[in-house]
Amino acid sequence: MEKSEATTIEVAETSRERKGKAPLLAAVVAAEHHAKAAAHKRGVAIFDLILRISAAAAALGATVAMGTAEQTLPFFTQFFQFQASYDDLPTFSFFVIAMAIVTAYLVLSVPFSIVCIVRPVAAAPRLLLILLDTLAVTLATSAGGASAAIVYLAHNGNSDANWLAICQQFTDFCQRVSGAVVGSFIAVALLIFLVVLSAIALKKH
Amino acid sequence: MEKSEATTIEVAETSRERKGKAPLLAAVVAAEHHAKAAAHKRGVAIFDLILRISAAAAALGATVAMGTAEQTLPFFTQFFQFQASYDDLPTFSFFVIAMAIVTAYLVLSVPFSIVCIVRPVAAAPRLLLILLDTLAVTLATSAGGASAAIVYLAHNGNSDANWLAICQQFTDFCQRVSGAVVGSFIAVALLIFLVVLSAIALKKH
Repeated sequence: MEKSEATTIEVAETSRERKGKAPLLAAVVAAEHHAKAAAHKRGVAIFDLILRISAAAAALGATVAMGTAEQTLPFFTQFFQFQASYDDLPTFSFFVIAMAIVTAYLVLSVPFSIVCIVRPVAAAPRLLLILLDTLAVTLATSAGGASAAIVYLAHNGNSDANWLAICQQFTDFCQRVSGAVVGSFIAVALLIFLVVLSAIALKKH
Repeated sequence: MEKSEATTIEVAETSRERKGKAPLLAAVVAAEHHAKAAAHKRGVAIFDLILRISAAAAALGATVAMGTAEQTLPFFTQFFQFQASYDDLPTFSFFVIAMAIVTAYLVLSVPFSIVCIVRPVAAAPRLLLILLDTLAVTLATSAGGASAAIVYLAHNGNSDANWLAICQQFTDFCQRVSGAVVGSFIAVALLIFLVVLSAIALKKH
């Protein structure tokens, strides 16, 4: 290795006279450039893996927090006991399903992220990850946005539509649900970062 | 050009004997490869521009449809006239603001898309577009998802939370609002396609 570098420098200095060695020079320079780009891309891929696991944890937390959100009030009438559960509102059911899909995708995409670490210059797994990450961003954002709209309504109500706030009664339920929405937004932020990171790694060096 | 190609073939056939011509060969091959990749990327960039203008039109349509949604019912009491407007619901106000931002971004990004057509191998404008397109996807999806949740509630109500459906009275208003939500989802689909397309164009050839 030492020797070939010395040759490179020598060839560079006297390149006009010794054109016969030029292909060797080109090959050495290309290999060095390639190795540098690969090291850079490997670093990005390791960061990608860490972010991916964090996003999976956030998405899992959001799914579990929403899926276990229920509250039974301590008072009841003769005919009726007041209780709230996430599946009373279709939007929250959608949230649980969508975030479960996102969590499953993020866990299943870890092997592809590892492939990107092992073979940093391969473009195909990265393109696949960008495509699926973008779809995951959309799914997680729609779940988070829709639930945020309903949580806002549950907290504040709406006098024009005559919808009353229910959070005065169901305090714990509302806190749990709000936490789940925050978790989904953390997952969304990490996923956006993942897409941008993959795009940077795809860039030609 | 014809002549240099002939030289290329000759050199390729007798490359072992005539190493001195190899740099010329390499340069010619590299230039041809570069031109091919540039033509491919230019095609992608033109498609990008068309999709971008379509997405801007969809986003503009959604903004205007929501922003002009209001209905006054033909009956009224002595004290009260029944009317619905988009700004009665904070989620719909958010929708108008978010979709207006997305529309403005899409219109302002057209020059960058044109730069990608003129200089197809430049990576910097494409990376910028991927980053901002991903943020626009998130904004449009959150607006569309949140409004879809409220529209669903307006259509169906929710007996558990004691929220009544308002679409039996405000038919036109609900139709207009639903149309706006559909428009935002069309814009989201086009934006996802734009992100994937930019990623493909960034790929090394």
